[in-house]
Amino acid sequence: MKVTVVKNILDANERIAAQNRKLFDEKKIYVLNLMSSPGAGKTSLVEKTIEGLRARFRIAVIEGDIQDTCDADRVAALGIPAVQINTGGACHIDGNMIREALPALDLDRIDLLITENVGNLVCPAEFKIGENAKVMILSTPEGADKPAKYPLMFQESAVMIINKIDLMPYVDFDLAKARRDALTLHRDLRIFEVSCKTGQGLEAWFQWLAGEIEAFRNR
Amino acid sequence: MKVTVVKNILDANERIAAQNRKLFDEKKIYVLNLMSSPGAGKTSLVEKTIEGLRARFRIAVIEGDIQDTCDADRVAALGIPAVQINTGGACHIDGNMIREALPALDLDRIDLLITENVGNLVCPAEFKIGENAKVMILSTPEGADKPAKYPLMFQESAVMIINKIDLMPYVDFDLAKARRDALTLHRDLRIFEVSCKTGQGLEAWFQWLAGEIEAFRNR
Repeated sequence: MKVTVVKNILDANERIAAQNRKLFDEKKIYVLNLMSSPGAGKTSLVEKTIEGLRARFRIAVIEGDIQDTCDADRVAALGIPAVQINTGGACHIDGNMIREALPALDLDRIDLLITENVGNLVCPAEFKIGENAKVMILSTPEGADKPAKYPLMFQESAVMIINKIDLMPYVDFDLAKARRDALTLHRDLRIFEVSCKTGQGLEAWFQWLAGEIEAFRNR
Repeated sequence: MKVTVVKNILDANERIAAQNRKLFDEKKIYVLNLMSSPGAGKTSLVEKTIEGLRARFRIAVIEGDIQDTCDADRVAALGIPAVQINTGGACHIDGNMIREALPALDLDRIDLLITENVGNLVCPAEFKIGENAKVMILSTPEGADKPAKYPLMFQESAVMIINKIDLMPYVDFDLAKARRDALTLHRDLRIFEVSCKTGQGLEAWFQWLAGEIEAFRNR
């Protein structure tokens, strides 16, 4: 009974996500769904990605939070269109929340739409929003056991960004194990090791993302 | 409609949690519901708390994870009864999962039952399990903006443990802001600053918990 209810919710979400996707295709908007635990560095990565790619692409951001607008304020401070979704308790963003946020954006002037999900390594992985790619961040203080414990997130994501590489000397993070376990769950996972604080490794991420956007636009 | 379904699930959970509570009262078992983001240090705190209090109390542990048994294995290695719940995708543990785990424990030989929830700063706060106290961990690399973003967790918890204090020199964590914002949400919140790695601050946590257990047993 409970399972049926959940299945109906997921089915309804997939329909709305597919409608979002159709609209994004028409408008040639490449959409990222950015996910991680709380505090792994999603907003910092958004800020750095804006810095790195704003000369090449027109970027907009949808920020998902349970409440408050501090992330959207951080992005808006960069002069980038930013919409805040407040989920009002919900632990993820879904297709319908994205659909309802879109009228606040000028879709004819966006090449890259970054959506930042609620900080949660579980539920967001279940809900499509019409994205081109799910990207997840694992930060080194969280530990290398996360792929084994939260497998769906690693299976669903096209990219794993290992953030806070600068903290490696101070935390017990087994980088080889994290990579190995994540790749066991998802053989084609792209992995980038970065520090949003020092900038280390970000250039490779920018290049990959720019290549994906170009390939999508030339499709 | 969706809201009604959710409310029914929560109501059913509260009934089961109350039944668990009645059983724990009869058996004089003090129960902690330990919650945090992934990788904030729940299992490390469980290990340290066992070390600190095993001479005074008989301790057992229920480990909640989406899958895998590595946390229960860590606890069992200390010679403590440990039961692993695998939620099979669910983002929290609930009253029924605890009820189904109890036959695996000898309830006549437990003074303190520590339940470690799924790593998630959102959903676990909504589900009672029959605990005496909810205890949450905030780790310094997560940042001081977490109370503002995930308020229910801070409102529902009796205790906030600020872990990884040893990383303060390397992360941008505004300790005063974290304390202030958490106390604004929950005036009576008990706060302990600790490092499970160095042991700093743990003695105060042990003393508080021991006092709570004694007060409960003498009630």
